[in-house]
Amino acid sequence: MRGAYQDLILPDVRQMILENDLAGLTAFCGVVHSAMVAEILEELQDEQIWIVLGQADEEVRTEIFEYLSLRHQAELVEKLEPRQLSRLLEGMSADDRVDLLSRIPPTRREESLRLIAQAERNEIRRLLQYDEESTGGIMTTEYASLPADITVREALERLRQQAPDSETIYYVYIVGKDRHLDGFISLRELILAKPEAILQNVMQRDPIRIQASEPQEVAAQTLARYNFIAVPIVDQEDRLVGIVTHDDVLDVVQEAATEDAYLQSAVAPLEDTYEETPLPVILWKRGIWLLFLSVVALMNASVIDHYRLSTSTGQEVSVSTGLASLILLFLPLVMASGGNAGSQSATLFIRMFALQPRTDRSVNGSLVDASLIWRELVIGLCLGGTLAGLDFIVAWGWFQRTINEAATIAITVVTVVTLGTSAGTLLPLTFRRLGMDPAIMSNPLIAAMIDVLGVVLFYEIGLLLLT
Amino acid sequence: MRGAYQDLILPDVRQMILENDLAGLTAFCGVVHSAMVAEILEELQDEQIWIVLGQADEEVRTEIFEYLSLRHQAELVEKLEPRQLSRLLEGMSADDRVDLLSRIPPTRREESLRLIAQAERNEIRRLLQYDEESTGGIMTTEYASLPADITVREALERLRQQAPDSETIYYVYIVGKDRHLDGFISLRELILAKPEAILQNVMQRDPIRIQASEPQEVAAQTLARYNFIAVPIVDQEDRLVGIVTHDDVLDVVQEAATEDAYLQSAVAPLEDTYEETPLPVILWKRGIWLLFLSVVALMNASVIDHYRLSTSTGQEVSVSTGLASLILLFLPLVMASGGNAGSQSATLFIRMFALQPRTDRSVNGSLVDASLIWRELVIGLCLGGTLAGLDFIVAWGWFQRTINEAATIAITVVTVVTLGTSAGTLLPLTFRRLGMDPAIMSNPLIAAMIDVLGVVLFYEIGLLLLT
Repeated sequence: MRGAYQDLILPDVRQMILENDLAGLTAFCGVVHSAMVAEILEELQDEQIWIVLGQADEEVRTEIFEYLSLRHQAELVEKLEPRQLSRLLEGMSADDRVDLLSRIPPTRREESLRLIAQAERNEIRRLLQYDEESTGGIMTTEYASLPADITVREALERLRQQAPDSETIYYVYIVGKDRHLDGFISLRELILAKPEAILQNVMQRDPIRIQASEPQEVAAQTLARYNFIAVPIVDQEDRLVGIVTHDDVLDVVQEAATEDAYLQSAVAPLEDTYEETPLPVILWKRGIWLLFLSVVALMNASVIDHYRLSTSTGQEVSVSTGLASLILLFLPLVMASGGNAGSQSATLFIRMFALQPRTDRSVNGSLVDASLIWRELVIGLCLGGTLAGLDFIVAWGWFQRTINEAATIAITVVTVVTLGTSAGTLLPLTFRRLGMDPAIMSNPLIAAMIDVLGVVLFYEIGLLLLT
Repeated sequence: MRGAYQDLILPDVRQMILENDLAGLTAFCGVVHSAMVAEILEELQDEQIWIVLGQADEEVRTEIFEYLSLRHQAELVEKLEPRQLSRLLEGMSADDRVDLLSRIPPTRREESLRLIAQAERNEIRRLLQYDEESTGGIMTTEYASLPADITVREALERLRQQAPDSETIYYVYIVGKDRHLDGFISLRELILAKPEAILQNVMQRDPIRIQASEPQEVAAQTLARYNFIAVPIVDQEDRLVGIVTHDDVLDVVQEAATEDAYLQSAVAPLEDTYEETPLPVILWKRGIWLLFLSVVALMNASVIDHYRLSTSTGQEVSVSTGLASLILLFLPLVMASGGNAGSQSATLFIRMFALQPRTDRSVNGSLVDASLIWRELVIGLCLGGTLAGLDFIVAWGWFQRTINEAATIAITVVTVVTLGTSAGTLLPLTFRRLGMDPAIMSNPLIAAMIDVLGVVLFYEIGLLLLT
């Protein structure tokens, strides 16, 4: 993600690192919002990032670090000593550090956990047990809780002393014996209530709660429906174990939408953003489904073949040989390969744009676009090549076609798949440049383009190789 | 949206209405969370809803009403007198009532606005001016603001008196001359600060803000990036005009994801949920794009025709006549029509599920499913019939095919489109029933199924009509 301000501040930060202006870096980290600092750091190399982070106050450092992408966090801590890592983890918030730990190799995780205080370590282990897709997997254990038998004045005093982080103070949960969730009061209600009132007389009883084992989407839907800032999470014995806050839920909704879009277009879910995911991973997550769909399309060709044979005994004898018959048999395969690869690319780009600020059309925008287009071209060639290989073997071995005929199919497929991924990239990019929604009709439009191109190329390549 | 509890409470509510148990209804509205009451009301008829709402306290009544879907709200107020409507509007929150007013016919809107106090009316008119897609269009004007020169103690005292609604109290904006946005302080910081401190010494200066004219997505991205509960919205002169809160942003993200999914599958954006949208609107919003894509596919057939003619002078003379040639020419059209209609259905159902709580697999789940499947079948037949009509005319008039050949194409298209929409409905439903993600590969899988079915049907119908 690139904001316009990055282009303004980034050179200054680079200059400060170069000139070893440590005071300047400390000031930079202290004054600029940690989320912005993190975005600027994303553009630097790991060593440079540590130089900047090293100059920030410890609290600010953790905050900035938490705003970095999970992938980047995991990369950065790779070179840390266990002691440094455990120090960093101690400062992090409960949910963020568990996310990070789940990305670290088990032996390294154990090494650094061993250096963390017993109570906190148990806490971490407990959170690590929850399924990543459950509400337990996104909840935080930093919430404000109070007993029911104190006055409002005492409650406010205790909150001041606990001084929990940011949003988590706005809802206060009232817990009884065994941390059983008895009630709930918002900070607003606390402030409006009479100071001498007893909490159990002003609290809301029986608050809406979610089981830690329920899927994340339930938390998202609950917060969306009731407009809560946070919702309490309980275990099977109805004991309070954490809360899920509005910002986590926003991530859940975005991730769910991305995952659905990917799944619908036959891309296996990615752990990171499309830009951040390495090429081999992308090739695998896209290629495996394209191969599967090609097998389906080849079975389809068998069906056509069956009909071709059964009708060829009638009036259409000559159809069973030559270019036209080849096209009749394999055109659906060609169209499906190109269309599927194209809609994969389009979906990946559309979701990438949806997760990016619109203000990102920065000075370097065109450069970023260019590198992505090139990468997509390489991906298209690799995927197309793989599918072409499969098609060649099946056409030659199973359908008993000549080498030249099998080559015609293979060359058409690799061309059409490459064109499909290019169209899937360029169409959303162009719509976006024109200020339109990049999603407009991309899938059917790409399919239609590929249909026309598929026919033309199939004929032309066939005429070249077979006559 | 149906929660499991609806099936438990709904019969009781119906009974109370039947027995005219007004005290029971008042208690029901007062005790149950307004969001839940609203969900139960969604299942009742308009008259019944007014009976229940009539028994609720005025404040609770407005709250329940605000939780109803916008479409339902607009329907309900249709029968209200201007005086009643203006009374209701006065109680509603600033952003919700503007949304409702934008759905009411202008003359009726004016009638009821005339009965609202001058100041509030001006406020409403001002909000109505903002583009629905801008941050101004989703902001609320209910926020807490204070001058910079008062003490923390005074600030807390004033907040107690203003006692603004729910979440809006958690961030306090500090405004100077002309409502210029000077700073910001969270309720948490206010409570932690020394009571005698002056606000301007403890507030955060230069808070992150958004222009009212910027698109909604900017607010969503800002809240997601910084984990804010709310973000201030300013006009061009940097004067505070409103705030956008976390719950509005969650809606924006969901709507944006839905719109992208629709656009990508060539469905024009719907104002309401798919279930709530009337049949003619759906037919128009899906049909117009399917027709456009059919025209593209027919142009594609022209391209194939060109190649067919140019090669028919060579070795493949007999290809230019008969069933095989018809299939070669129009198979891409058949496949595209079925595939596109199917992926429309799949996308609409997948998004519908994404916006629904998972716990909705209630007792009546299967009944709801059945009615939706029937509706989708009707939609498929209507869309297929329309496309078939176009294809028949073009095949007969433009491609100079015989009536029987044109009929073969038309019958194949209507069958394949109906099968496509059915597959697009049943596939996500089945995956969901199996506890899997309903989105899995729906588009390519449906396309592949339609490819096979298209070939088989085209041949079989052709053999029936042409031999």
